[in-house]
Parts: sequence; C-alpha cells; structure tokens
Amino acid sequence: MQKRRLETCFSPALYEPEGHTNSIVVIIDILRASSAICTAFANGAASIIPVAEIAEVKYYKSKGYLVAAERDGFVLDFADLGNSPFNFTKEKVEGKTIVYSTTNGTGIINLSSSAYMSVIGSFLNIGALTQWLVRQDRDVLLFCAGWKNRFNIEDTVCAGAIADNLMRTSLYTTICDSTYAAIDLWSLASPDLQGYIEKAAQRTRLRDKNLDDCIAFCLTPDFTDKIPVMKNGILVADI
Amino acid sequence: MQKRRLETCFSPALYEPEGHTNSIVVIIDILRASSAICTAFANGAASIIPVAEIAEVKYYKSKGYLVAAERDGFVLDFADLGNSPFNFTKEKVEGKTIVYSTTNGTGIINLSSSAYMSVIGSFLNIGALTQWLVRQDRDVLLFCAGWKNRFNIEDTVCAGAIADNLMRTSLYTTICDSTYAAIDLWSLASPDLQGYIEKAAQRTRLRDKNLDDCIAFCLTPDFTDKIPVMKNGILVADI
Repeated sequence: MQKRRLETCFSPALYEPEGHTNSIVVIIDILRASSAICTAFANGAASIIPVAEIAEVKYYKSKGYLVAAERDGFVLDFADLGNSPFNFTKEKVEGKTIVYSTTNGTGIINLSSSAYMSVIGSFLNIGALTQWLVRQDRDVLLFCAGWKNRFNIEDTVCAGAIADNLMRTSLYTTICDSTYAAIDLWSLASPDLQGYIEKAAQRTRLRDKNLDDCIAFCLTPDFTDKIPVMKNGILVADI
Repeated sequence: MQKRRLETCFSPALYEPEGHTNSIVVIIDILRASSAICTAFANGAASIIPVAEIAEVKYYKSKGYLVAAERDGFVLDFADLGNSPFNFTKEKVEGKTIVYSTTNGTGIINLSSSAYMSVIGSFLNIGALTQWLVRQDRDVLLFCAGWKNRFNIEDTVCAGAIADNLMRTSLYTTICDSTYAAIDLWSLASPDLQGYIEKAAQRTRLRDKNLDDCIAFCLTPDFTDKIPVMKNGILVADI
C-alpha cells in the first residue's frame, strides 16, 4: 500500500499551491481564528462565510448577517463578534450563518482554495480531526498561518501534534523537514503546553492587548468533534 | 544597556530586508556552501567572489580565475571545484581568489546585500563566529538558506547553536519565534548531531547522489577561526 504524503508549511509565504492540488490542507491559526471557528461549530453554528475585505463584511452586515471581524486582535466597530472563541457562544451562534474576517485566517483560506479540500484544525478538534483525516485517504498538508508571514510557535506545535498523531497510524510518510521539526517541537511542548507557549510572540501580543483570557482554552484538546470543512467557499461542519 | 536584537529567518522567502539594514546577517547553508566557504578560508583562500549566473562564472573562468560552481550538488563541467568542502584543499586554494556559484547560497548573499554586513556561518567556525559577533555590538539575523525556499533542519539547528551561544552572553534579546524554535531544535539535536541530521531531506538527497562523504566534517565545530565577511561584494576572511 502506498503511503500518504504528509507535509507542513510554516507560513503563507512558503505555500506552494501546485504541490497540493490533490491534498487536504489543514489550516492552523490557533491564536485565535481556527480555535474560534471550531468553537462556533461546537456551539451549533450552521456555516461560516470567510471574507477577506472589510467592505464585503459590511455588505453582509447590511444584509442582516451575524458578523465576526477583527484586525490585529481587535473587534471592528460594526461587528457582532471578534476573534475570541469566547465570543462564539451557543446563544449567539446556534443555527446561524456567520460572516467572518480575520487579519490572517481568511487570506489563507483563499490561498489554499486550489487544494483538494481545506479544513480547519486546532487543539480543540485535534482528536476528531486525526480520525477524520485517516478516513479521507488523502495526502495532507498542515498549513500554519503564522503571523504576518512569519513562522510562529503556537501553530507549529499544533501542526506537530497533528503530524505526530498521523505518523503513529503508519499510514503516512514524510520527507518534509518542517514536519519533523514540528513533531520535535511538539515533543518538547507537550508536557507543559501552556508553559511552552509563553515564549511565543503572539502570547506576548495578546497579553499586551488584554486579549489572552482564551489561551488556556485554545490549548484544550478535544473540546469538539466538529471538523470545519470548506465547501463551495463556505465552511460547514463535518464530523 | 540596551540589548541587541537577535532574529532568525528560515528561508529566503521569509526574508524581510527592511528590518535588517542595521544588522549583521549570518548566512547559514551548512550542506554545503557555507561549510565549503569556511573551509576555503581555513585553507588560505585570499577571497571569494560570489556569482549567481553561470554565464558570469564562465566569463571569470575565461579570465583565468579558479572557479567553484555547482547546481543541485553536481560540479558544473567547466568548473575547477564543486560544492564539497573537501574540494577546497590548501593545495588548490591557498592565496587564490575563487569565483563561487551555488544553487542557493550566492542568491542569498545578494538578497542580504542591504544589511549592515553579511558573514558566513557554519559549525566549522561557530566558536570564533560567536566571539566575533559579540565584539561587533550589532543586532544579528541568522539567515538559514533552506532548500528551494523551504525550511530545512540542518541550517536551523546550526542557527539554533549560534543563537544559543549568543543568548548565553546576555547581550542579546529576542522576541522571534524562529529563534526560540531553532534553539529548541538545537537542544534536541546537540547530543547526537549527526544522528539528528539523518532525518533531514538534504541528508537523503546527498546520500542519493553519493555526495554525503563530507557531512560529518560539516558538523564539526571549530575547525577554523576564520569569519568570511562580505566587503564590496567579495568575501574576505576576518578573524
């Protein structure tokens, strides 16, 4: 049996779309977009429309959509929700379609649109995601959002945790140095994930903006079994 | 006293020149360009002219220069030397100016030309390089060559080793996730560096091409105290 190929990309600036047209791309932006999206589906959101441009978000808002929009961590003034998973409560999102625009995340979703499929990964859905990926029988690219095109630690250790899970199934093979590095960083981080993340620049940025209340939550494994899957430009929950 | 800033860049595709106009950029491409360059100076080379284009290398060859040129690991047919450090023997290079073109390395030297200064780093000169950087009193960027714009393990662990040395002096500070990751990967690699490098894709590529005889040598610390420094487009040895 031919093994599936597993790769990891540390930044949108390193993404090579032509290599992944037959792969499932797992988008990882754990502080905070991918954790927020997983939480929204855990709390019953019907779908999420990722939108890059603020003008377009405003248009949706004028049409009555529930809107989540942030730039550099802060909620835009016209938005209903920001980028913290704690915003996406059952009361607010159950049964709703959410229009969602973040600094980083929505751009990456567009970037990976040429892949076979894009899904959202985080610690919150890591166990279900692993099982889901195994069922798909596809090559996998773990796509770390990073920060302003830079490598970041928090997405890398999450990618490493997913990669570690997948490699243990013996269904995958990798010749990708980024994957090995991510797994090794995960091995260092896993005994005390929150302590390890302390050195991440995004940890400091969120603390400086008083936006760090959700970090422990974002590092919680298996909060949900929902897999946000991109279908026709809209995220819906698969399980 | 204000601490100096230490950063690490994992790929030419992630390099942000505007952030480093006052920094010393350490170019790290240990398998094999930066190891070969350090070896050349250790063996008495007078200077090295990095050249990107093959046509230009041929011009220099026609003028009687000693020429080192490879593409994807293999020596170009008109060249006197390839990319293995073992090519740069005292007999061949002592007192000579070498024109040098590699797949990756010379492009990066050009990319970093807007920095305050560029120098070549490897395990072969790591101790002397650390002391030299400390004497310069400048911000430092550790610039990993990677491979075809991808992250690679071998340059990252070398960057981590240099970063670890510099951070231990307490003269430097970093808020760069890449630096922390590199130091952590170095901490995993250092007990058995050659064993750790086994998983690197470049290790496999060199083995497949029978070009891996020099790997143990490239991982040898402190073979030389020479620091190849770029001055007016030419590499010369500082100590």
